[in-house]
Amino acid sequence: MEQLRGACIIGQSGGPTAVINASAYGVIRTALDNPNITAVYGAAHGIKGVLDDKLYDMSKEDAQELELLKYTPSSALGSCRYKLADPDVDDTDYKRILEIFKKYNVRYFFYNGGNDSMDTCNKVSKYMQKMGYECRVMGVPKTIDNDLNGTDHCPGFASAAKYIATSCVEIWQDAHVYDTGMVTIVEIMGRHAGWLAGSAALANLMGTGPDFVYLPEVDFDMDKFLADVKSVYDKTGKCMVAVSEGIHYADGTFVSEAKASATDGFGHAQLGGLAALLAETVKEKTGAKVRGIELSLLQRCGAHAGSKTDVDEAVLAGKTAVEAAVSGVTDKMVAFQCTRDGGYKCEAILQPLDIVANIEKKVPLEWINAEHNGVTQDFIDYVLPLIQGQNPITFEQSLPRHARLKKVLTNP
Amino acid sequence: MEQLRGACIIGQSGGPTAVINASAYGVIRTALDNPNITAVYGAAHGIKGVLDDKLYDMSKEDAQELELLKYTPSSALGSCRYKLADPDVDDTDYKRILEIFKKYNVRYFFYNGGNDSMDTCNKVSKYMQKMGYECRVMGVPKTIDNDLNGTDHCPGFASAAKYIATSCVEIWQDAHVYDTGMVTIVEIMGRHAGWLAGSAALANLMGTGPDFVYLPEVDFDMDKFLADVKSVYDKTGKCMVAVSEGIHYADGTFVSEAKASATDGFGHAQLGGLAALLAETVKEKTGAKVRGIELSLLQRCGAHAGSKTDVDEAVLAGKTAVEAAVSGVTDKMVAFQCTRDGGYKCEAILQPLDIVANIEKKVPLEWINAEHNGVTQDFIDYVLPLIQGQNPITFEQSLPRHARLKKVLTNP
Repeated sequence: MEQLRGACIIGQSGGPTAVINASAYGVIRTALDNPNITAVYGAAHGIKGVLDDKLYDMSKEDAQELELLKYTPSSALGSCRYKLADPDVDDTDYKRILEIFKKYNVRYFFYNGGNDSMDTCNKVSKYMQKMGYECRVMGVPKTIDNDLNGTDHCPGFASAAKYIATSCVEIWQDAHVYDTGMVTIVEIMGRHAGWLAGSAALANLMGTGPDFVYLPEVDFDMDKFLADVKSVYDKTGKCMVAVSEGIHYADGTFVSEAKASATDGFGHAQLGGLAALLAETVKEKTGAKVRGIELSLLQRCGAHAGSKTDVDEAVLAGKTAVEAAVSGVTDKMVAFQCTRDGGYKCEAILQPLDIVANIEKKVPLEWINAEHNGVTQDFIDYVLPLIQGQNPITFEQSLPRHARLKKVLTNP
Repeated sequence: MEQLRGACIIGQSGGPTAVINASAYGVIRTALDNPNITAVYGAAHGIKGVLDDKLYDMSKEDAQELELLKYTPSSALGSCRYKLADPDVDDTDYKRILEIFKKYNVRYFFYNGGNDSMDTCNKVSKYMQKMGYECRVMGVPKTIDNDLNGTDHCPGFASAAKYIATSCVEIWQDAHVYDTGMVTIVEIMGRHAGWLAGSAALANLMGTGPDFVYLPEVDFDMDKFLADVKSVYDKTGKCMVAVSEGIHYADGTFVSEAKASATDGFGHAQLGGLAALLAETVKEKTGAKVRGIELSLLQRCGAHAGSKTDVDEAVLAGKTAVEAAVSGVTDKMVAFQCTRDGGYKCEAILQPLDIVANIEKKVPLEWINAEHNGVTQDFIDYVLPLIQGQNPITFEQSLPRHARLKKVLTNP
């Protein structure tokens, strides 16, 4: 394969995760160490940084700070939710990207994100090819939702799953302290896929955690839900439930949105989330004391409780992208192929960029129990290896010491 | 001092903390090892366990499981919120307690809790003295709120403070990822005292965390709050705020309750908490994208992110209570006397049980800034030593492995 010398750009896009910076580290460290890559630029806020000529010179960063990226949540380079137009309709952005690529002799483009980011990669690559500008383009996947097609799982998911499971172990302890009744409802991210909500069931391995888990892959039935809760509550005086934010009725209406129709028109009902709505409903119907808990942003940024396996694999994904590109590969997304029989093994493979297009990988129905209120052992066997290992977090004054980048602009 | 041989009871009362079991461990381990203490009983759900003759024989527990109590959040023996009557009005409960004490030859009573628990200790002790039954009674303090009088600080506070600070470091990273506007509002426990809300400012040491902190020690002014937020948001496009759940207007109305008066009568507004209310208000007034986050139960049960100093001191409090009682002391609460100049030092001292009665120790006004939207360096210097050190958590399948007690009843 012919050698291609030139600069590279790494960009981050979409919602944050606990390990997206670990992937960026994998790209940056590997690229800085590679003789064919003449400069390593971090795009400020993803593709917008390219369009705005806002590129950080990563060679100016302290090596030690780059190491800390592995345990720094959220996107250190900044993220965006910018969708490129169809180049046949409007090629303004593409012309600008090419201009910037030429200005800095960018021959490698690494983009770290979800569905939309792979679409961006694909469009940029096709345009460069059409214009006869040689640039190798690689996608590095990330999403806490774990809904990307073409990969066993996705970096970012496992750390979120572990944060959720750890929190459910602890919440269970708290919710079982009195000898009076208590129902606890924990709301978990994942609008269309139940991978995260299902991971709450990992807490069951510790004899704690939710009695029931409701995923968005199946229709939600409020009466059935209330009967489920009541059955356990009547027996034990306690019930803990985990719900995906995306649970919906048979007609497709989100349970969280159905609420809005019952408001007074002043928007008050917007104040509460799904957990609060379900808590209120359970309280009304059973008289139980109820607590609704929304895990909120912390499930995707709680790196202090992250998975070492997730960090290691996120770094591997970034490293693989660079090594493959330098060796001549382009237009691929790094993915994982895993075996679990006889011990967990994970291998980085390369998939076509469009493999993720228009497909949301959901929890298989056969991994959801017959009652539609829990996950099966197959689900647990799938997730458990991914959350293994504690990260060697660096603390300063006993608080997590995250990377502090200088972010030296090439074009200040 | 005369030797007193007999059994002891340890009970836990009030809201859970991350380290109340560390104090229980201090009591149980020290008592099991003391030749004057003939049996160690854990009361199921505090004083209710005494009244119901539900006592666990702690000598039946595995030593290794007892060690795990140090890192197990919530109250392993079970808690209660039971207030004993005035014995001059109704001495039914006291007669029953004496009966149980006689039945098991209980000569030591250790009660682990807050204000009300110290009151329970006091009443039980006075009654026993009146009836001529020798029993040494010691209070072991706990509360995440840190509002107990007579002690530098209270076991449980520091771990909650550390969880809050760690979470604020991480939430800040997440909330600063896009180059679009974002206001984040974090709601923190502490209805009357702002120790926990103020601790969010520890995140500022890491160059992250809230721009403003609002404590319940001073009146809240919504217009001033909105102007504060707007001033930072207009300049940086971001603003992060930490608020105590107990912030109130000048007339004493809780901000969270003021909302209720604006409901439609169907209770919808109950659905959201204070964070949601403030988020909605900021959104309306500034047009900013806003996220309200309630840290909820996790701030008091998130032992995985707890403070080693807190655990060590909680164990010390329990140990001190037993050693003092065996040496002849009674009617005291263990407290801490600390020095911070020239390095942090903490010493266990003994205070009269009624020192906590009717006093809520609040954040001194001179530790709140002139603008009433933050804390001073004195506050930080006070809290920072308390959150130091990571706990050697035991993991099983990479999830926190909490103590699993057999809870063998003496009277099954």
